[in-house]
Amino acid sequence: MDINLPDVKADVEAAFARYEAALMSNDVEALQALFWNSDLTIRYGVGENLYSYREIGAFRAARSAVGLARTTSRTVITTFGHDYATASTLFHRATIPGKVGRQMQTWVRMPDGWRVVAAHVSMIEDP
Amino acid sequence: MDINLPDVKADVEAAFARYEAALMSNDVEALQALFWNSDLTIRYGVGENLYSYREIGAFRAARSAVGLARTTSRTVITTFGHDYATASTLFHRATIPGKVGRQMQTWVRMPDGWRVVAAHVSMIEDP
Repeated sequence: MDINLPDVKADVEAAFARYEAALMSNDVEALQALFWNSDLTIRYGVGENLYSYREIGAFRAARSAVGLARTTSRTVITTFGHDYATASTLFHRATIPGKVGRQMQTWVRMPDGWRVVAAHVSMIEDP
Repeated sequence: MDINLPDVKADVEAAFARYEAALMSNDVEALQALFWNSDLTIRYGVGENLYSYREIGAFRAARSAVGLARTTSRTVITTFGHDYATASTLFHRATIPGKVGRQMQTWVRMPDGWRVVAAHVSMIEDP
């Protein structure tokens, strides 16, 4: 099992950066394009549990674009072999003082590119 | 990319069941044995952010064994190829009424067996 092969890691970092940019601009189409189009895709969000690509898309389309800006910290991207990766990051939002967000994603390289197959976002008191 | 090959899925289901049993009995040694022994392993818990196998082990060793019992629901295990899987489940604890827990794990088949390389657990109001 090859961990963090440089070219694989660079590809996932680029995909992760595209995701972050799409999130900041609330580009729903770009966000959805980075998720695996499957009934098996799961996203546990800050206040909702979404099972399937369709539920995730419906949530994104209905969400307010206000207050999504954030700063990330302690981001760790780890790749396994050529086709698998995890991406974990903490984040803070000026609109939610005293709390730290945690975002964890599992990425898989599908025939059409890297896709998030599972994601979990939550907020807790900043320890 | 082969999704949910039956023999691979059976192996991950067995590992997932071992993890759940170890959690219910607060078997810290068994829990740690199922996590990847690496500085890159991350576990975002209900109230803490743990970076590295060592931090995860220290947290487990210090944790009270009281009130860990839970019932799980909507568990989805998905395997990708032969070496990679995600496991997501909701859970409820009698000691925490009105809340739903979410546990998401990324599993990788290492030379010595299936290991959790990233995990995220959180609780929210039961929608």
